[in-house]
Amino acid sequence: MAKTLTLSFSCPDTTGIVAAVSGFITQHRGWITEASQHSEVELSRFFMRVEINAESLDFPAEKFSQHFSPLAQQFKMEWKVSDSTQPKRVIVLCSKQEHCLYDLLARYVAQDFAFVIPCVISNHENHRKVVEAHGLPFFHIPITPENKAAAFQKMSEIFRQEKADLIVLARYMQVLDPRLCQEFAGKIINIHHSFLPSFAGAKPYHQAHEKGVKLIGATCHYVTADLDEGPIVEQDVIRVDHSENPEDMAHLGKDIEKVVLARGLRAVVEDRVLLAGNKTVVFR
Amino acid sequence: MAKTLTLSFSCPDTTGIVAAVSGFITQHRGWITEASQHSEVELSRFFMRVEINAESLDFPAEKFSQHFSPLAQQFKMEWKVSDSTQPKRVIVLCSKQEHCLYDLLARYVAQDFAFVIPCVISNHENHRKVVEAHGLPFFHIPITPENKAAAFQKMSEIFRQEKADLIVLARYMQVLDPRLCQEFAGKIINIHHSFLPSFAGAKPYHQAHEKGVKLIGATCHYVTADLDEGPIVEQDVIRVDHSENPEDMAHLGKDIEKVVLARGLRAVVEDRVLLAGNKTVVFR
Amino acid sequence: MAKTLTLSFSCPDTTGIVAAVSGFITQHRGWITEASQHSEVELSRFFMRVEINAESLDFPAEKFSQHFSPLAQQFKMEWKVSDSTQPKRVIVLCSKQEHCLYDLLARYVAQDFAFVIPCVISNHENHRKVVEAHGLPFFHIPITPENKAAAFQKMSEIFRQEKADLIVLARYMQVLDPRLCQEFAGKIINIHHSFLPSFAGAKPYHQAHEKGVKLIGATCHYVTADLDEGPIVEQDVIRVDHSENPEDMAHLGKDIEKVVLARGLRAVVEDRVLLAGNKTVVFR
Amino acid sequence: MAKTLTLSFSCPDTTGIVAAVSGFITQHRGWITEASQHSEVELSRFFMRVEINAESLDFPAEKFSQHFSPLAQQFKMEWKVSDSTQPKRVIVLCSKQEHCLYDLLARYVAQDFAFVIPCVISNHENHRKVVEAHGLPFFHIPITPENKAAAFQKMSEIFRQEKADLIVLARYMQVLDPRLCQEFAGKIINIHHSFLPSFAGAKPYHQAHEKGVKLIGATCHYVTADLDEGPIVEQDVIRVDHSENPEDMAHLGKDIEKVVLARGLRAVVEDRVLLAGNKTVVFR
Repeated sequence: MAKTLTLSFSCPDTTGIVAAVSGFITQHRGWITEASQHSEVELSRFFMRVEINAESLDFPAEKFSQHFSPLAQQFKMEWKVSDSTQPKRVIVLCSKQEHCLYDLLARYVAQDFAFVIPCVISNHENHRKVVEAHGLPFFHIPITPENKAAAFQKMSEIFRQEKADLIVLARYMQVLDPRLCQEFAGKIINIHHSFLPSFAGAKPYHQAHEKGVKLIGATCHYVTADLDEGPIVEQDVIRVDHSENPEDMAHLGKDIEKVVLARGLRAVVEDRVLLAGNKTVVFR
Repeated sequence: MAKTLTLSFSCPDTTGIVAAVSGFITQHRGWITEASQHSEVELSRFFMRVEINAESLDFPAEKFSQHFSPLAQQFKMEWKVSDSTQPKRVIVLCSKQEHCLYDLLARYVAQDFAFVIPCVISNHENHRKVVEAHGLPFFHIPITPENKAAAFQKMSEIFRQEKADLIVLARYMQVLDPRLCQEFAGKIINIHHSFLPSFAGAKPYHQAHEKGVKLIGATCHYVTADLDEGPIVEQDVIRVDHSENPEDMAHLGKDIEKVVLARGLRAVVEDRVLLAGNKTVVFR
Repeated sequence: MAKTLTLSFSCPDTTGIVAAVSGFITQHRGWITEASQHSEVELSRFFMRVEINAESLDFPAEKFSQHFSPLAQQFKMEWKVSDSTQPKRVIVLCSKQEHCLYDLLARYVAQDFAFVIPCVISNHENHRKVVEAHGLPFFHIPITPENKAAAFQKMSEIFRQEKADLIVLARYMQVLDPRLCQEFAGKIINIHHSFLPSFAGAKPYHQAHEKGVKLIGATCHYVTADLDEGPIVEQDVIRVDHSENPEDMAHLGKDIEKVVLARGLRAVVEDRVLLAGNKTVVFR
Repeated sequence: MAKTLTLSFSCPDTTGIVAAVSGFITQHRGWITEASQHSEVELSRFFMRVEINAESLDFPAEKFSQHFSPLAQQFKMEWKVSDSTQPKRVIVLCSKQEHCLYDLLARYVAQDFAFVIPCVISNHENHRKVVEAHGLPFFHIPITPENKAAAFQKMSEIFRQEKADLIVLARYMQVLDPRLCQEFAGKIINIHHSFLPSFAGAKPYHQAHEKGVKLIGATCHYVTADLDEGPIVEQDVIRVDHSENPEDMAHLGKDIEKVVLARGLRAVVEDRVLLAGNKTVVFR
C-alpha cells in the first residue's frame, strides 16, 4: 500500500477554502487520491477530508504540518494530519459477551484497517485465552461498588501509558467514570444495543419488545458524561417480529452490534469522522 | 384466483387448539393453503390464521361461521372469517402530499391485494382530478379550528354510510377527533414519518436532523386517542448522512412512508394483523 | 430555491485538476455548495461534479460555458453545465403496468427533483385518464410485428420534437429498435426487474423462482442495443422466501422497481451519473 | 432451556396432514411451541416443521420415532426428529481468511444455537493458536496437486470418525473432491462471496467490479459436485459504488459473508431447512 497522508479539518465557512487547500497541495506536486467536503449551514462551518499520496509531495511527510500551518491559521482551521504508516492505537474494553471482541480481533489479524490493539481490558476473566492467543496483553480489572474509583484510575493510567488514540467499549457493561469521559473526550466510542434515541439506558431489547417495534437497532456513538447521549457515528437495524422475545432479540442484535461498532471504529480510525456540535460529519 | 376463506383468531393458550382447528377443517374436507400460529407467552394467548380453499369445503362458504361457532366458543376465541370475493372497503384520507395517495391508487387499479376505495377525503382540493380520473368520489372537507367538530362528524357519517372496513391516513395532516378514534377503534391506520417511538409528534424529520441519526424511518400503526402511540404494524428505515437537511430527509422519507403504509395496509386487509394488547402479531 | 449551476466532467487523470477548477470558481467569487470527485484507476480518468450558487459568480450564469471553455480544453474534459432553472425534459414510456408511471407522476406533481414530463407514450390505452388528469399529453402507439418500424419512427420524431433530455422506460414491455438506441444513446434509461447480471431477458421473476434465490432485485440501467447490458445506474433488492411464487414476486418486486427507477432517474437528472466505459460513476 | 423435540418432514401433498400430525401430538398431550408449513405446488409436496416441548409428551423423548412411525408411513414422509439436548456436530473447514472462522468460534463459545465443533481443519497453519485457545483440535491438511486425493481421503475419515452432522466451508478455498460431495451430500454447506447465480466461480468481487454492480452479495448454499450450483439456503447484499475497487469489495464483503454463513448454518442446525428439488424451504 502506498504511504498516505490524511488531512482533515473544519473551519468557518467562506469561499476559497477548497481552492486554497487544493492549490497548496498542487503547488507541492501532491496527488489527491480522495477528497470529501461538507458545509454545515446551521453552524456556518466547513468540513473537509483529503487523502494525499505522501510520496508525490515535494517535501517529506513529516514536514506537512509545518508547511500547512500558515494556511490552517489563515482559515482558522481545527485540523489534523495522519500518516498511514502509523496505525492508530485502539484499546478494547469488554465484558462477558464475546461478539464485538472476536469481531475486532478478526479485523486486527487481517489488518482490515490501520489499527493496532495495545491491550484488552475486561471486568471478567473469560476472554483471557483468546486474547493472549493473539499475543495481546489482557488486563482483568473487576469493578465493584467499592473499588470503582481505583479501577477507573488504573484504566486511565493504562490509556495514557499505552498512548491510546482510541478506546472502544465493545459491549463493556460498566458505566465509565465521568472524569474518564472528560479526560479522554473525543477518544472513546461505544456500541449501544438500540437505535438511539429510542431505548437508551438499561435493557434496550426488553424495551423494544415491550413497545412491539418491528426493527431493532444498534448505535455507535462517542461517549460523553451523559449516558448514551454522545454524538452518533453509525447506526443500523434488523427486522424482528412478534415471534422474537427479548432473548431472541439479544441474539439477533449481536450481528448488527458488531458490524455497526466496526464500521464506526473504522470511520474514526480513518479520520472520516469530524465532530459538528453534538452531531458528526462522517465522510464515506 | 381461487375463492379463499381466511380464518383468524386469538384465544387463551392451551394444548389441542391446532389439532381441533385443523381437525375441523379436515373433517369438512377443507384444503388449507396457508397457516400461521403464535403463542404470546406474557399474555398466555394463542394466535392463528388459516387460509382455506373455499371450494374444497363440504358446505358453502357463507355457512362457515355457523359451523365453526361451537369450536370458537369452546376455546373462547375472538375470531373472524373473511371471504376473498368480498374485498375490504378502505377509505383514504389525505392532505396536500401526494406520495401515499398515488401509491394506494396504483395498488388499487392493479388490485395488488383485495381492497376497494369507496371514496377519498382530503382537507385540500389539489388531488381531486387524479382521484376522479379513477372514477372515485372525492370529498373536500376543510378543517378549521371553528368547523372541526362538524367536519369530523361529517367524516364519521361517511365512514358509516360507506360501510368502511378500514380508514387509512395517507399522510393526513390533521389530528383525528378522539371520538372518531374511539368509534372506529381497530379500523384506522396511520403512517407516521419516523421510526417510533423516536420522534413522535410534529416535525419528526427536523427532530431526526437535530439528533444526527444515521437512519430515518416510517411507522404504520393503529390510531388510538394517544397520538402516535397505537400498536405498531410495520416499520422501515433508510440511510441518511450529514449532508441531508430536514427537507432532504422529507423527500427521501416519502419512499419508505408509502411502502411501509402499503405493506401495513396489505397485512391488515389480508387479516394478517391481530392485536395483542398494545402490540400486534403480524403473520407473514 | 437558489439558482444553481451544476458542472460535471471527466478527463484524463493528472495533478492539479481540482486546484484549477476550484481556483477558477473562487477567482470568479463562486460559492461551491457541493463537490464530488473520483479517479478511475483502470481508465486513468478523473471525474468531478460541482454545484455552484449561480448568483455568487461575478458573471451571468449563461456565460459560464464561455468562461470555463479554456480550462476544459486545457484538461481535455468531456463536460457539461446545467442550470437548475431549466428542468430536464423526461419522456415516459409505459405499458399496462401502473406502478412506475404513478410513482413518476407523483414525483412530478411534487417536483421532488427538477424535471418536467413533456408527454407519456404507451403501447396500451389504459393509463390515458390518469395521465391527462395531470394535463399531460398521452400518445397511444401500439406495437405490432407489422407496424414496428413505423411506430419507432414516430416515437423518435416525438423525442426530437419535444427536445427530450431523457427517455424513461417505466416498465415499457417492448424492445426498442436498435436505431432508436443509437440515436438517443446515453439518453434512455430502463428499469429491469432483476438484479442484473442475473436473470436478464424475459420473465426474470420466473427465472428467480426457478433458481430459488432468497432476494429479488431491480436494476436501473442505460439502454444500449445489447438487451439488459447497458451501464448500471442503480440497483436494490428485497427478501423473498420459498412461499412466494413468481406472481407474488412480481407483486413484491414492484416496490423496488419503482424506487430504483426513480432513484436512478433522479441521479441522471441531477447530473450525478457519468459514464465510465460500460460502467457508471454515480455521485451521491 | 426446556428440552425440545423438533420434527421436520416432507411428503406428497394431500388434505389432513396437519390435522393428523397435530392430532397425534395432542393425543399424547404434547405442547407445540412453534409450527411452520408449506405446500410446494410444482412438486405437489408438503413441508412441515414442529417444535414440541419434550416434557409435555406422555412418552419419553427417545420413544418419539417409534410412536410417530406409523403416521409417517401412512403419509409417505421423509422425516427426522432432533433432540435439543444433543447439539449438532459441525466440523469447520477454513483457509487463510479469518472472518468466518472467528464468527463461528464466537457463536460457539456463546452457544448462540445448539452446535459443537469437534475440530477445525485448514489447509494453512495460521489459525492454529486461536482454535486451540478454545480447546478445539486443529488439523492442518495442506492441499497440493500431488496429495489431493490422500488429503480428501483423510478429511473424509475425520468426518466419519467425528460423526459430523455438518461440514461448513468457512471460506475454505479448495474445491472439494466430488466423491466427498457425494458421500456427505446434504451435509456440507458453503459460503460463496457473490449473490448467486451471478459471479459463480473464481474471483467474484473482480467480476462484480468489472460489471459495475451497485450491490455485492454472499450466498450460503449446499455443496454438490456442481461448483456453486447447490441449493441456496441464505443470501444477502450490501451497497457499493464506483469508489470501491475489488480489494475494497473483498473487505466490505466479509461482513455479509460471515453473517450469511452463520444464518444459513443456524437454520440448518435447527432443522429449518428442507430440500425441495434443487431449492430449499427455509422456515423462519
